[in-house]
Amino acid sequence: MLKTSGYAAPSARAPLQPFSFERRDVGPRDVLIDIRYCGICHSDLHQARDEWGGAAFPMVPGHEVVGVVAKIGKKVKKFRVGQAVGVGCFVDSCRKCHYCKMSEQQFCENHVSFTYNSTEQDRLTPTFGGYSKQMVVDENYVLRIPPGIPLQRAAPLLCAGITTYAPLRQWGVGKGTRLGVLGLGGLGHMAVKIGAALGAEVTVFSRSEEKKKDAKRLGAARFLVTANAKAFEDHQQYFETIIDTVSAKRPVDPYFELLKTDGTYILVGVPEHPLELKAMPLISRRRKLVGSLIGGIAQTQEMLNFCARKKLAADVEVIAMREVNAAYERLLKGDVRYRFVLDLATL
Amino acid sequence: MLKTSGYAAPSARAPLQPFSFERRDVGPRDVLIDIRYCGICHSDLHQARDEWGGAAFPMVPGHEVVGVVAKIGKKVKKFRVGQAVGVGCFVDSCRKCHYCKMSEQQFCENHVSFTYNSTEQDRLTPTFGGYSKQMVVDENYVLRIPPGIPLQRAAPLLCAGITTYAPLRQWGVGKGTRLGVLGLGGLGHMAVKIGAALGAEVTVFSRSEEKKKDAKRLGAARFLVTANAKAFEDHQQYFETIIDTVSAKRPVDPYFELLKTDGTYILVGVPEHPLELKAMPLISRRRKLVGSLIGGIAQTQEMLNFCARKKLAADVEVIAMREVNAAYERLLKGDVRYRFVLDLATL
Repeated sequence: MLKTSGYAAPSARAPLQPFSFERRDVGPRDVLIDIRYCGICHSDLHQARDEWGGAAFPMVPGHEVVGVVAKIGKKVKKFRVGQAVGVGCFVDSCRKCHYCKMSEQQFCENHVSFTYNSTEQDRLTPTFGGYSKQMVVDENYVLRIPPGIPLQRAAPLLCAGITTYAPLRQWGVGKGTRLGVLGLGGLGHMAVKIGAALGAEVTVFSRSEEKKKDAKRLGAARFLVTANAKAFEDHQQYFETIIDTVSAKRPVDPYFELLKTDGTYILVGVPEHPLELKAMPLISRRRKLVGSLIGGIAQTQEMLNFCARKKLAADVEVIAMREVNAAYERLLKGDVRYRFVLDLATL
Repeated sequence: MLKTSGYAAPSARAPLQPFSFERRDVGPRDVLIDIRYCGICHSDLHQARDEWGGAAFPMVPGHEVVGVVAKIGKKVKKFRVGQAVGVGCFVDSCRKCHYCKMSEQQFCENHVSFTYNSTEQDRLTPTFGGYSKQMVVDENYVLRIPPGIPLQRAAPLLCAGITTYAPLRQWGVGKGTRLGVLGLGGLGHMAVKIGAALGAEVTVFSRSEEKKKDAKRLGAARFLVTANAKAFEDHQQYFETIIDTVSAKRPVDPYFELLKTDGTYILVGVPEHPLELKAMPLISRRRKLVGSLIGGIAQTQEMLNFCARKKLAADVEVIAMREVNAAYERLLKGDVRYRFVLDLATL
């Protein structure tokens, strides 16, 4: 076994603290990664505080992992030592089912080994995430970070990037289409960048004018304040697609009316409370409300290549490991532009 | 002008009563229809009682109209006198917009002239529906009833038939797929018949065992009582598609869990109350909640031809015109198997 260290939540109610643990030895198909940066996703906080239930402690969060290959197993073909690589939300899956064969491992019909707060394929060995020095991952679950993306700005692509890229591609966002983005946080700012890079006209919906300048800088063509009833009236049937990255409780059906016939409302933020919505706006214009969940390995690599080609990456605030608990508190207040990224060199 | 008679609601609070009125003269592209039967759709009741707002009185309801061509205009090419024809939910539209050109007139971007409680393209002349002796309709908005479907059983196809056929086709219901049907009323019983005829394995969800025998007769392979929690457990990720024809208030998200990855929950019943649903079941398996609204002329004709080929039609209870108010009361109690059809000969 391989000794390493990181930060872990010892229980749902305690702050994260330094933690020493072991990774498996590098097997023939494994890649040992020296982790350089790890993004802080809102779901890290939900899980570290057991807000979704079933959390396993001690928990080393982190599924926006980037680093450099330190060692490879004998049979590894896809990577070489020194290469920049990333790990996203999962580190293994059954590899045999319909979805694994389609490289949509996030829907594996048997068992997804999520990057942390989960188990390996034996369903026993706990997985530990990227708030740590090193990680051992099967090469089939490792992504190449293309040259040109600064590593700290690449980290959030592994979750926030693919979470927004996948549904925007699935639902035809591109040239000649109009995309609305709800919420300008970690996910939302990536939706703006990716939507604009795909060629869509992007409109950001926000509670106040505060983020207007930023929205434009990120690539939004237009900015609407949600309290402005007239803006809603003026934009009836305006958009082909709206992506909702907000997890706070609020009505969603007023936004349905802003969608054209056959328009798509994409949910990627997970609200804690149930949504309340009227059926008529869906029926009257054959609109749809759809969910989307991260993306598979093949599409995650496609997204990274797309970002490199389009020269885009996340806007990040790099922090030291010891600041992680303070960062969680700021995250709860939405006080981050637009993703905290832990610098593992500070551990 | 052409004198005719029918039944009308004089106001939102009065029962329907005999009513004399005029239709336009038969123009060069018009078809004069001697109406034989008209189905009673739940939306007739909603509108006659102004439950959706904006109702215009006197109102002659009825958009499941079948009859025989009595006269044709000089330039009519599609129909001949004596032919069996039908009229559905609309009698005109702008004919110029994207949706009209696609024969999806129900989404006309300018003005849909619904069959009743609406106006002609001048946006002034009120339209009157099929609870009447005769009707004058532009040939482009008239459907052929193929030989082999008894007229009284064809009437409900014009709304209940197309309302279920269109989304089942859109979302890939067919051989090798599993369809769940919620609610076994006018829409639900057509969804069962059409789903089975398309080759799907159909499961009916119902509140009690009462309709089990009927469900099987209509073509359902399986029947589940909604109160049975174990049935829900046993059918996690079982269906590709669920069509919800129920308009009563009830939770919808427990049904989401019964859908496979990428599964589709189709809403066609319009609940009076908002729906409440959790986002997670949509996100976790990339499921979708979609609306659907009747269908265009081309697809309505396709559906009628499909029904004729598959030898299927609605199950109806034919009633006399004077029974219409009593039928509304029975409809409110769900006491009909499965559609009331007015016999215009009794007027």
